[in-house]
Amino acid sequence: MTVRTAAGAVLVDGRPATGVPADDRGLAYGDGLFETIAFHGGRAPLWPGHMARLRRGCRRLGLAPPEPALLWSEAAGLAGPGDVLIKLIVSRGSGRGYAPPARTATRRVLLRQALPILPARLYRDGLRLRWCRLRLAIQPALAGLKHLGRLEQVLARAEWRDPAIDEGLCLDADGHVVCATAANVFIVRDGMLLTPQLDRCGVAGVARAALLARARRWLPVREQRLVRADVDAADEVFLSNAVRGVMPVRMIGRRRYRPGPVAARLGYTLAAVGIGQAFDEPS
Amino acid sequence: MTVRTAAGAVLVDGRPATGVPADDRGLAYGDGLFETIAFHGGRAPLWPGHMARLRRGCRRLGLAPPEPALLWSEAAGLAGPGDVLIKLIVSRGSGRGYAPPARTATRRVLLRQALPILPARLYRDGLRLRWCRLRLAIQPALAGLKHLGRLEQVLARAEWRDPAIDEGLCLDADGHVVCATAANVFIVRDGMLLTPQLDRCGVAGVARAALLARARRWLPVREQRLVRADVDAADEVFLSNAVRGVMPVRMIGRRRYRPGPVAARLGYTLAAVGIGQAFDEPS
Repeated sequence: MTVRTAAGAVLVDGRPATGVPADDRGLAYGDGLFETIAFHGGRAPLWPGHMARLRRGCRRLGLAPPEPALLWSEAAGLAGPGDVLIKLIVSRGSGRGYAPPARTATRRVLLRQALPILPARLYRDGLRLRWCRLRLAIQPALAGLKHLGRLEQVLARAEWRDPAIDEGLCLDADGHVVCATAANVFIVRDGMLLTPQLDRCGVAGVARAALLARARRWLPVREQRLVRADVDAADEVFLSNAVRGVMPVRMIGRRRYRPGPVAARLGYTLAAVGIGQAFDEPS
Repeated sequence: MTVRTAAGAVLVDGRPATGVPADDRGLAYGDGLFETIAFHGGRAPLWPGHMARLRRGCRRLGLAPPEPALLWSEAAGLAGPGDVLIKLIVSRGSGRGYAPPARTATRRVLLRQALPILPARLYRDGLRLRWCRLRLAIQPALAGLKHLGRLEQVLARAEWRDPAIDEGLCLDADGHVVCATAANVFIVRDGMLLTPQLDRCGVAGVARAALLARARRWLPVREQRLVRADVDAADEVFLSNAVRGVMPVRMIGRRRYRPGPVAARLGYTLAAVGIGQAFDEPS
C-alpha cells in the first residue's frame, strides 16, 4: 500500500484537539458510528452517500445527527485542497452506564489521515483473497450500520499476515457470504450482478450503494443471500469500498477469476469521480 | 442510584491526562477490553478475578497484556483511600486499518469514577426486571470477553426509561437466556444453582466466577443453556455484578419472586469483602 499524504490533524466538536475525552461513550461502549471519506481537491465525491448512511445510523441508534452543513464546513476545512481521508466519528458523547443519557450530546471527531491507495497493478490484475475462518455474528439490530464495534473485522483481518493476500471474505454464522473485512463484495453470473443482502450483518457500503444505483441502469441487479458456492461459480468477483473504489478479484483461495467487464465498467464510473482507480478505461 | 464519591481523574499509560489519542483503536474499532473495579479503602476485593479475565481476553485478542504489578500501582494510586470505581480500558494503541499492527503497543487508560451503589431496599426487596426485545448475537469468538463493543447492551438498556424497572434480561438469537444488560443472571431450582453457559455470547462476569466458586462448596451448581421457561419456573432469581454484588430479583415482567436464601447467602459472602450490600446478614 502506498500513501499519498501523511498530514494528520484532529477536530473534536469543531475545535483543534489531539485527543478525545477519556469518558467518551464511543471508546467505552462502541456507542457511535463512523465514516471514512475520501477528499480530492476540496471535493468529497461520495459525501451525500456518507451523510445518508450517517443519518440512518443515527436514527437507528437514537443519536442526534450532527448538522450536515456544519460537518461539511469542518470536514472540507480540515481536508484542505489535497487528496486526503477524513475519518468522521460520531459518538454519544461522554457518559457512564449503558443507558443512553436522556439528553444526548452527540460528539463529532474528525481526523485527517493519509489516503491509502492501492498499487495500480491490483486494479488491473485483481486482488487475491482468502476465506476467513471467523464467522460474522447475525445481529439485525446493527446490520448495515458502520458502528464503532468492529472487533470482528479486526479478528478476521488478523487471520493472515501474508502480504500476498489482499483481503479476506467473511461468511455469517449461517454460512452466507457477507463481505470482505473492509469492503463489500459483488459477483457477476450469467450477466446478472449479485451482492449479499445486509439485513442481518455487514456494513451497507457507500460505494456499494453508488454502484448498485449505477449498475441498475444497464444490468439486472439483485441483493440476495449468497453462499460460497455462488462465489465459486461466479464469472466475475469484485469488491467495493468508498476510498478504494472497485477492486476486481483474481483469486480466492485456489479459485482463479479474470477481472471482468462489469468490474471494469463500474470501476470506471467511480474512478471518474475520483474514487479508486480505473484499471481499464474505456477507449 | 446514589453516589458515594464524585472524584474524577484519568491516567493514560501511567500519566495524568484528560483524553485519549483520537486515533486510538479502542475508539475506532472497539479493539480492546475493559474492567470496572471497585476499590474500598485502598483494596480491590475482586482484583485477581479482574486480572484473570483481562489476561484471558488479551490472549484471545492477541493483545500484549499490561504488566499486573504496574497496573496495580497505577490503579491503587489513582483510587486512593476512598470508595471509588476504577475503570480500566486496555486498547490496541493507535493505528489505522483493521489489521492489528505487527508490534502491538497496548494502551492502558484508567478512569477514577464515583462508585454507583444501589439503594439498600433493592438488596432487601429485590430488583424489578423486564425481558428485553433485543436478541444478543451469537459470536463464540468474542463470547465471555468484556470487550469494548457494547452497543447491544446500550440498545437493550435504551428499551425502557421507567425508573421502576431496574434491569433487563436478554435472550440470544436462539432464545437462550444470557444475562442482564449489566449483570449476570442466576436461578435456583430444586436446590440447584443454574447460570447460563457463556460460550456463545455474554460477558463472563468476575462476580459470577467468584460466586460459582463459593457456591460449589455447599450447593450443586451448573452452567448450562437456559430458556425463559426455566427462569419462569425458578424458585429464586438473582443478578451479579462486580461492583453491585448479588442483587435478588422480585419481579420479571408480571412474574413475582421472593428474594431467597441462596441469593442471601451468596450476597453476604460478597458483601463481606465489600462488594454490594448484605440484605440479610446471617445472625
